[in-house]
Amino acid sequence: MSDYVSMWKDLGMDLENHDLLCQVLPTAVGDVFLSQENRPKAMDFWDLVISEVHGIRPAELIKEQEKGRKVFGTFCVYVPDEVVIAANGIVTGLCGGSQFWVPDGEKVLPKSTCPLVKASVGARLGRTCPFFRIADMYVGETTCDAKKKAYEILGEDVPMHIMDVPQMKRTKDIVKWKEEIADFAKVVEEFTGNAITPEKLSEAIHIVNEKRKAMQRVYDCRKSECLPISGRDVLLMTQISFFDDPVRCAEMCNRLADELEQRIKDGVSVVKEGTKRILVTGTPMAVPNWKLHNIIETSGGAVVCEEMCTGTRYFENFVDESKTTLDEQFMALSERYMKTNCACFTPNTGRIDDLLRMVKEYKIDGVIDCSLKFCCLYDTEKYSVSRALKEAGIPVLSLETDYADTDAEQLRTRIGAFIEMLND
Amino acid sequence: MSDYVSMWKDLGMDLENHDLLCQVLPTAVGDVFLSQENRPKAMDFWDLVISEVHGIRPAELIKEQEKGRKVFGTFCVYVPDEVVIAANGIVTGLCGGSQFWVPDGEKVLPKSTCPLVKASVGARLGRTCPFFRIADMYVGETTCDAKKKAYEILGEDVPMHIMDVPQMKRTKDIVKWKEEIADFAKVVEEFTGNAITPEKLSEAIHIVNEKRKAMQRVYDCRKSECLPISGRDVLLMTQISFFDDPVRCAEMCNRLADELEQRIKDGVSVVKEGTKRILVTGTPMAVPNWKLHNIIETSGGAVVCEEMCTGTRYFENFVDESKTTLDEQFMALSERYMKTNCACFTPNTGRIDDLLRMVKEYKIDGVIDCSLKFCCLYDTEKYSVSRALKEAGIPVLSLETDYADTDAEQLRTRIGAFIEMLND
Ligand code: SF4
Ligand code: SF4
Ligand code: SF4
Ligand code: SF4
Repeated sequence: MSDYVSMWKDLGMDLENHDLLCQVLPTAVGDVFLSQENRPKAMDFWDLVISEVHGIRPAELIKEQEKGRKVFGTFCVYVPDEVVIAANGIVTGLCGGSQFWVPDGEKVLPKSTCPLVKASVGARLGRTCPFFRIADMYVGETTCDAKKKAYEILGEDVPMHIMDVPQMKRTKDIVKWKEEIADFAKVVEEFTGNAITPEKLSEAIHIVNEKRKAMQRVYDCRKSECLPISGRDVLLMTQISFFDDPVRCAEMCNRLADELEQRIKDGVSVVKEGTKRILVTGTPMAVPNWKLHNIIETSGGAVVCEEMCTGTRYFENFVDESKTTLDEQFMALSERYMKTNCACFTPNTGRIDDLLRMVKEYKIDGVIDCSLKFCCLYDTEKYSVSRALKEAGIPVLSLETDYADTDAEQLRTRIGAFIEMLND
Repeated sequence: MSDYVSMWKDLGMDLENHDLLCQVLPTAVGDVFLSQENRPKAMDFWDLVISEVHGIRPAELIKEQEKGRKVFGTFCVYVPDEVVIAANGIVTGLCGGSQFWVPDGEKVLPKSTCPLVKASVGARLGRTCPFFRIADMYVGETTCDAKKKAYEILGEDVPMHIMDVPQMKRTKDIVKWKEEIADFAKVVEEFTGNAITPEKLSEAIHIVNEKRKAMQRVYDCRKSECLPISGRDVLLMTQISFFDDPVRCAEMCNRLADELEQRIKDGVSVVKEGTKRILVTGTPMAVPNWKLHNIIETSGGAVVCEEMCTGTRYFENFVDESKTTLDEQFMALSERYMKTNCACFTPNTGRIDDLLRMVKEYKIDGVIDCSLKFCCLYDTEKYSVSRALKEAGIPVLSLETDYADTDAEQLRTRIGAFIEMLND
């Protein structure tokens, strides 16, 4: 990635420390992805992007910034990309998924904070991630305690807009979220200098819906008994989709889906018949967090669905494209986003309904419910999730992990035993 | 407390287990309170209440229930007592402050949950606290992740109403909280069968304001260089005020304040001159959590103010009594409650303003910022709190603890060193 050194320098990055990250990433990519056999050819796009993750896309973003476009960094699938796109802005995900960033986060945050939040703060304050440097404005939300308070610290270092996500899902809360979206639109208009018209917003809604449809197509292929792609590969696709241009993302996902559909017709599977089909649910897995998928898929299981924000929660449900006034469009956006079932809501029974539905749709043999350490929301919700799944006769394994490698062996033992139990 | 056995039985309590709690509490009360010298006489009321904490007040509540009154259990100072009182209902605090209840909470909640929440859930599910059995309806709120999710589990066992607290304090959020209060009023009216009229609400607002004024009078006495009461004693008074009848509470606090004002005139202090004056800030201390105060005051310091919900946040700011329509009254309530500065809000700079003001008002030598383990909100806010205090030249000690005794020695060492440093 040496071509990008001067770019990183211009971004004010800590080059020396960043070098250490650049040294370990290729090995991880090789171990987790390139070692797989019989991968879909269309993965070449994501292999390229991940191999130069701190180079290719950052360079593109900077080029667009030079043309006057603004980059908005987000941390949650509740922040509506459509609003930014309508103002000719660019959205990039900013969640940190590596242990590398955790120590810098721990300089200002309690150790007993979830690793995603510590890594995100550390990536910014340690100046070791170009995306965190490039974003002109961060958009936060009041979803969980850790993020809500961490944004106060990040907000001292970078322009920050906070959206107040309702904590419940009553009719009035959907109206309230609509109003937050409308307020956000004003902020975006002012920050970009571009007006958001119903036409522009309509176009943006269409763009993001197309991206969702393309991702759904890939996921639909995973419902086949003949499994044409590994969980790791889909996870990578999903993770990168948070960073990529949405039109290209749709194109690449459709290209992959074409290939997967053909594979199913041809009976090409990446696993041998009878491989147990695992649904993974829980907290998001930000790049380069591939730990759980890698362990599951090297322990004899296949991940065929992720009920998580780096998964189905990101693309399920479309925004109604028939609305023609901003007010109606904001409401349509709110209605779609409020269908996403995050544990930050109370109650969150919709997530259980989703899980029971997906268990059928994806022909699941067992569920692994895994949350990041110190994520109170998903950790507490395990109680009702595992009860509901057990009542439905679905084996479930509840886990908790962080970004460190220290528990890898323990996880491997527990996951191995779970899959063995499914095989019996 | 043996007179109450049949009452506890009728409440469906686990008598055997509850006995264990009854055995340890008197010793704790003796050690922490009765061992003090030169206490205000007016503490006799609270000594009596705490000595039969599971007897006297529960028996009163049951008597009122027999007359048809409803008891509402609450967990946060954001829930407006006025609304319940206006409908002839009774409010009782329900926060658990003992390690005794933690194991029962851990049966359904993650271990990495704050002890207050684990104890509260454990007190209900383990059937070892009469207040948790007596309450006809629980009123929860979406303040922190732990409570928000724990209420889902409690709500399976008892009628539960959740109020959605806004996470920010913009003008529209104050309106939103007003609407939550109005909705709560409807729930209370239905549950009690009593209409809330502007007259009744006006009366209730007055009652609670009078209670606040009385508590403020006691706190004002602590501002004196001649310190007429210990921190432990005031903490007990405050804790019990969450359970007590508000009119009697005001009466007792005023009686205590009379005595304290006289003591100041007479130059009667409970500590020797030069004793370092400590402000304690952080998470609430529910009965019988006296750990920190006890350590500070047996390590040569005096606690003269608590910037916490079992402290100033409970009684500072009055509700405007001049409003005459329900709509205006709900707004006046919202405005008063939204002045309370809890770390669940973002930003929460008002807390820093409060702290800097109180440091002056109470002539503080040092601040101890102590949060309960796994309280992400207050734990993260320590960063900005300690920075602001240090900038203002106020020594600050940041601590974290739970309800277990295991860290008592370590706390004693750190607090001792802090007070010694102040003395130098
Ligand atoms: S898990 Fe919840 S808070 Fe996190 S990205 Fe998803 S919706 Fe947002
Ligand atoms: S994993 Fe949990 S604690 Fe971490 S950012 Fe997401 S919701 Fe918050
Ligand atoms: S600390 Fe916050 S959540 Fe807890 S009682 Fe106080 S206001 Fe409520
Ligand atoms: S101490 Fe913190 S985690 Fe515990 S109930 Fe209060 S705000 Fe929630």
